[in-house]
Order: sequence, then structure tokens, then C-alpha cells
Amino acid sequence: MNDCAFCRIVADEAPATKVYEDDHLCAFLDIRPITRGHTLVIPKRHAARLSDLDAELGARVFRLGHRLAAAVQHGGLAADGANLLINDGAAAFQTVDHVHLHVIPRKHGDKLRFVKGLVLRRPHDPESTAAAIRAGIAAKDQGAQP
Amino acid sequence: MNDCAFCRIVADEAPATKVYEDDHLCAFLDIRPITRGHTLVIPKRHAARLSDLDAELGARVFRLGHRLAAAVQHGGLAADGANLLINDGAAAFQTVDHVHLHVIPRKHGDKLRFVKGLVLRRPHDPESTAAAIRAGIAAKDQGAQP
Repeated sequence: MNDCAFCRIVADEAPATKVYEDDHLCAFLDIRPITRGHTLVIPKRHAARLSDLDAELGARVFRLGHRLAAAVQHGGLAADGANLLINDGAAAFQTVDHVHLHVIPRKHGDKLRFVKGLVLRRPHDPESTAAAIRAGIAAKDQGAQP
Repeated sequence: MNDCAFCRIVADEAPATKVYEDDHLCAFLDIRPITRGHTLVIPKRHAARLSDLDAELGARVFRLGHRLAAAVQHGGLAADGANLLINDGAAAFQTVDHVHLHVIPRKHGDKLRFVKGLVLRRPHDPESTAAAIRAGIAAKDQGAQP
């Protein structure tokens, strides 16, 4: 076990509010969300940078981000859009050295809230937020319409 | 043919400095780059939003973004990192209704230049920039080391 904060979350050795998990991936709420429902998708296998990440595992990370972008527009969050973002490298504002894809739910007219979120980065009731995202994933998996 | 600006680029009916093209994808320089080498990856088939985009085609878009993130750290651009970003929906600052992945090369200590780029968004010699990215793609394809 290395001392990577995200590897500890994968191993359930550090607390996180997980919204999805499979053999390859884990998704959990950002502890300092920019908007409600701000989620991080990571490969379980440690990869510090995109250059350390296998192309197929990278595609898996993105596919889950794509699903989550849909999920946050369903269920309780009712977002109108999302930003999907990977910061690769300290020069690009990467702060944890384990590749992570941000999925940041957005709503029409939330620009000021978004800027406030960028500054404050305060949690918004993680349990109900995670439940809303899980419901959105389940709704999409059942082929529900937006 | 619809009136989508990016579909016109795919069809070579509008000018763009392309750095990569295959049967499914096209990548070209952002006409208003935030940093030098700011590139957009798009699916050739029109999809306005992520919700209109097939999961596998989405994964292809991301795989090319992953390759380009490596390419801009090779060749002439010598970036130290990159931001990979999809803005999905007007609420998330999407401005052209054809899914596009931004690949924004970053360098250590470029924060002020980055902020200036966000405001000015001026081109930086597109031909030499595209040549540097194409060289980076070719270097990676030959398995060259960073």
C-alpha cells in the first residue's frame, strides 16, 4: 500500500462517500465540491498521471464519467449539464497524484453559485447527494427517459 | 448537411487547422486558444450533447484526448501537463452544440499566461503549433520516451 489518498479510499482505509464501484473503477463525492454532486472517477489501480494510465483503463474512466454526466441530470439532482475535467500534472492544477476525472453538475443560471463554489468548496449533505446520484445511475440503467 | 460549425469543419467546408483525423474522429486547433496548442477533439458524427453520443464513440474521443495530452508533452510544444475538459450543455459553458473535448497544454508557472489566455484567446501561429502537435503524435506512436 502506498500513501496515496485515493488508493486509501479504494481500499476503504479512508472515508469517502462512494456513488459507484466496480472491478476497475471507483467514483466518490469530492470532499470539497465546487457544486452539489461534484464527483471524482478514478481507476482503482494507481496511476499518478495520464502517461501512467493504460489507454483502455482511461477509456473506462471516461465511460463512467459519461454515465455520471447523465445520472446527475436524472434522480434528485436534476442538473442541466456537467463539466467533465481531468487536470493532468501539477502544471494543470492536479493536486492528488492519482488520475481523477471530475464530474461537476451544472444548472442553468448557476454561474455565481459556481464561482462561489470554486472559492468556498463546502460539502452539501453528502449522503442525500450520493443517494440522488445513485438513483440517477439506476434510472439510466433502466433506460428511463430524461 | 446541418448548419453546425464543427460538422462543416469535418466536411472541409469551413477552415480549420487539423492535427489528426480518422474515420470516427477529427482534432483541430481551437480558433480561440487559451494556451498554445489548445486542441478540440470531436466525433465526426454530429452529437449535440453527451446524451446524444454513443458510449463507445465517447470512449474514442477520450482515447484521442489521452493521446494528445501525451503528444503536447513531446514534439515542439514541450508542455508539462494538460487540462482535458468537456463542457456538456449551455449551463456548463458549452458554446458549440457538437460534443468537443478540449485539450489545453499547460506549462509550469503558466498561471498568469493561462488567465490572460482565458481573457484574450488569441491564436499563436497555428501552422507551427499544429506541426509541433503532429510531431508529438508521431513521436508517441513510435514509442519514443518523454
